[in-house]
Amino acid sequence: MSGDSILTRHEYEQLLEPHTKELSDAARWIAETGQRLIVIFEGRDTAGKGGSIDMIARNLNPRQCHVAALPAPSPREQGQWYFQRYTQHFPSKGEITLFDRSWYNRAGVEKVMGYCTPQEAEAFLQQVPEFEKHLVEDGFLIYKYWLCCDQQQQEERFKARLENPRRRWKLSPVDIDSRTRYQAYTEARERMLEATHKPWAPWTLVDFNDQHVGRLTLLRDLLDRLPDTQLPYPAIDWPPLATKPLKEQFDVLKPIPNMQVD
Amino acid sequence: MSGDSILTRHEYEQLLEPHTKELSDAARWIAETGQRLIVIFEGRDTAGKGGSIDMIARNLNPRQCHVAALPAPSPREQGQWYFQRYTQHFPSKGEITLFDRSWYNRAGVEKVMGYCTPQEAEAFLQQVPEFEKHLVEDGFLIYKYWLCCDQQQQEERFKARLENPRRRWKLSPVDIDSRTRYQAYTEARERMLEATHKPWAPWTLVDFNDQHVGRLTLLRDLLDRLPDTQLPYPAIDWPPLATKPLKEQFDVLKPIPNMQVD
Amino acid sequence: MSGDSILTRHEYEQLLEPHTKELSDAARWIAETGQRLIVIFEGRDTAGKGGSIDMIARNLNPRQCHVAALPAPSPREQGQWYFQRYTQHFPSKGEITLFDRSWYNRAGVEKVMGYCTPQEAEAFLQQVPEFEKHLVEDGFLIYKYWLCCDQQQQEERFKARLENPRRRWKLSPVDIDSRTRYQAYTEARERMLEATHKPWAPWTLVDFNDQHVGRLTLLRDLLDRLPDTQLPYPAIDWPPLATKPLKEQFDVLKPIPNMQVD
Amino acid sequence: MSGDSILTRHEYEQLLEPHTKELSDAARWIAETGQRLIVIFEGRDTAGKGGSIDMIARNLNPRQCHVAALPAPSPREQGQWYFQRYTQHFPSKGEITLFDRSWYNRAGVEKVMGYCTPQEAEAFLQQVPEFEKHLVEDGFLIYKYWLCCDQQQQEERFKARLENPRRRWKLSPVDIDSRTRYQAYTEARERMLEATHKPWAPWTLVDFNDQHVGRLTLLRDLLDRLPDTQLPYPAIDWPPLATKPLKEQFDVLKPIPNMQVD
Repeated sequence: MSGDSILTRHEYEQLLEPHTKELSDAARWIAETGQRLIVIFEGRDTAGKGGSIDMIARNLNPRQCHVAALPAPSPREQGQWYFQRYTQHFPSKGEITLFDRSWYNRAGVEKVMGYCTPQEAEAFLQQVPEFEKHLVEDGFLIYKYWLCCDQQQQEERFKARLENPRRRWKLSPVDIDSRTRYQAYTEARERMLEATHKPWAPWTLVDFNDQHVGRLTLLRDLLDRLPDTQLPYPAIDWPPLATKPLKEQFDVLKPIPNMQVD
Repeated sequence: MSGDSILTRHEYEQLLEPHTKELSDAARWIAETGQRLIVIFEGRDTAGKGGSIDMIARNLNPRQCHVAALPAPSPREQGQWYFQRYTQHFPSKGEITLFDRSWYNRAGVEKVMGYCTPQEAEAFLQQVPEFEKHLVEDGFLIYKYWLCCDQQQQEERFKARLENPRRRWKLSPVDIDSRTRYQAYTEARERMLEATHKPWAPWTLVDFNDQHVGRLTLLRDLLDRLPDTQLPYPAIDWPPLATKPLKEQFDVLKPIPNMQVD
Repeated sequence: MSGDSILTRHEYEQLLEPHTKELSDAARWIAETGQRLIVIFEGRDTAGKGGSIDMIARNLNPRQCHVAALPAPSPREQGQWYFQRYTQHFPSKGEITLFDRSWYNRAGVEKVMGYCTPQEAEAFLQQVPEFEKHLVEDGFLIYKYWLCCDQQQQEERFKARLENPRRRWKLSPVDIDSRTRYQAYTEARERMLEATHKPWAPWTLVDFNDQHVGRLTLLRDLLDRLPDTQLPYPAIDWPPLATKPLKEQFDVLKPIPNMQVD
Repeated sequence: MSGDSILTRHEYEQLLEPHTKELSDAARWIAETGQRLIVIFEGRDTAGKGGSIDMIARNLNPRQCHVAALPAPSPREQGQWYFQRYTQHFPSKGEITLFDRSWYNRAGVEKVMGYCTPQEAEAFLQQVPEFEKHLVEDGFLIYKYWLCCDQQQQEERFKARLENPRRRWKLSPVDIDSRTRYQAYTEARERMLEATHKPWAPWTLVDFNDQHVGRLTLLRDLLDRLPDTQLPYPAIDWPPLATKPLKEQFDVLKPIPNMQVD
């Protein structure tokens, strides 16, 4: 999944381990105290948004932590209030939403590729800090990550997607057009940071030239923004089973044979 | 994540590799030919539903493959048509929905724990084959997996959840009550199979006493039910970049320092 | 609104009055006993579906009685299970949904205008009785009305829409194409009745050549299908106000002047 | 429906007629030019919100004009962003939403009845002008009406609801508690106007002591805020029918007998 790293997969997982422990404490704090956490993942194509989200989501209760990876808007959605289809995925109390791309599309791909007018992009940048401020005043926690990588890395990763059928779905037509607009994306990002990096909803840039290191860095940063709270679990009465443990018994249908693994 | 297996994590991943390749071919076939695939994951508590779903979902485009892990119904949902909140998550053409538990709750946990009347459970069992038949006639593919494990295994896994704070969220109060009803769940499953194992929407039981082996077995079975089609990708013109690859340049905000990994 | 009737508007309203009283009793019975009522309005273009629905809805609590008048399906909805976008509007316990057109589109306009294949229309007709049976077994009440009128009437009403700017929105391009297919709609209706007029979800044809009479007839029939139950209201303590009744007082903003009505 | 007026029903309808003509022109302008119109109806209990909304909605295409009369929030909705459940009902381009009560609940009933804290009510009042400004910048039209009536009128109307079984559903327990808080509602309204009467989303107070006059005044005001544009309809070719108009023919099922109306 990740690719290029000074860390082997094994090393990465070893290093990740203690942080996932902390992540689960933080999730419990969110649940118990009724927080609402929004984490936005933006960045270069290929930088590693999906893998970072997966690192977090797979360690959490899917009924608490939702991933919002919205498809292109339908015609009716295109006519709606720009934020509308995103607001439907906001967390309720005790929940987490991880946005795989977000309303910041308007300041990035939509602006660079001309899917919105420059005026719309600029109006968006004016509005979004107030929009997020209202959410934060309402009690939301909003953290925004932008995943960086150099064009050399991006090219290699695009190439890998092009050549690897299993990753080919990750290569959209927009990606192909975006390939030659690295500089335009840089400029769009700088303008976006200028307008929307606010104390109440800060951006954090993370270097994802090394994806394993990038993920660990991002997770560490996120955890440092949340309180380090270990809420004790209530004791549960756990008497021994009254009878000998039962075995599966099959009548109507039997399990299929296990796959041969040696 | 998985635990108890004759396979190490590394061995498991080696064995998984070729199947994920096939999975991505199958997903492409679904997308290109406009199929609608529903895969239902039911089974013993602790058997490994979440891990199996994750094995599949993380290898697919999250805009194509959705996981439906529904929370407990709201009061208004409780008054609705029983299938209503599930139908909202059905795949559109080209999409996949993986149900982490499903409408079969009514034949399992709801029946065993008394959340519905025996009459409601029985009425459900009468209706569901016709309901699924309509979907299949409409072109849906429906595969239903029930993940088995012996009570001994279940006890150990419950224990691990009890003692491991990181997994503690997996231990719900219902689990604790379910612990002593292993036999009632067996009987409920048998009744369910009797009523709902149909050619158009078959059940497959998979032995998850060994979770790595169980996952591989399940995935292999699912892939064998889908056509083995490798749709060629269109050639993409991929000229060299016109300029030297650019590097990230930062003005407003710099990336945070990478985490120290050695 | 209605037009052609042997009854003046005033006479119609006089005749309607006692039935709306009964309607409000029936709605209360639905609310108090947790019924779920679906009423489907189908029929000739111009027959008077909208006016009939309005006659009912405006006498009921809009938080209890919902009108589902769905727009044309979006591309994504077109790929979904055919019933899916309708099921989202099903009533919860205590509620009423009035469908202004419904899933029966497939047996009517879609079939006649070729928006679905003859096979799809026929498959729909096979499925829908079972689909509705499941709902009724689940406790739903389903009544289906088909509003009839002769082509002469239809022509005159189309004409009125064509010539009256205020009704022009009611004249869709599909209407214009439908105009010459009166006979095909008759045949589609007969086939639909043959397949879907079932004891658990019966059709009722109502003659709407006279719209006032048609509405009264329809409402009377619907009320006769519901129990004639007058649930007593709890007594409410209603002491006199402690102080003299207050008058509106305005500080920031005053009401606009009333319109001159003489 | 309305009750107390110097105008008879017939006079009211005569006076209304030319305005509904204009309303339909305005709706067409909204549809053709892709406007998004939000009209908010707030005001005293019994003032006549429902009747005013009905006056507008029944003259428009229900596929263009939606009424949002939201039920009390579910527990999950209560944990959401305060505006979230309202935003789901915002109009898309070409559409109209009439809000029967709205987010201003927080500044009215929630504040007066103590369903939110004074701090929450005040924070809402700070946020809402910016929230609405963003919508207006995005191209929305927002008009807000507050329907006034004196307590004497309100008492009489409450009484009528209490005594008339057909209107009894309009008498909620909250109404009964609100009855003695006329003054508190006045004060809450004044504070609300102070904070949220803005050029981009103005409030209009309308005197509804006479409901017929109130409705006409409100509609006239709304129409004066929209451009007076009569978009010509395209000519439609309307040849005579090729054959003699057909009559309904019934085979499977006949219409029920018409109700006797004399």
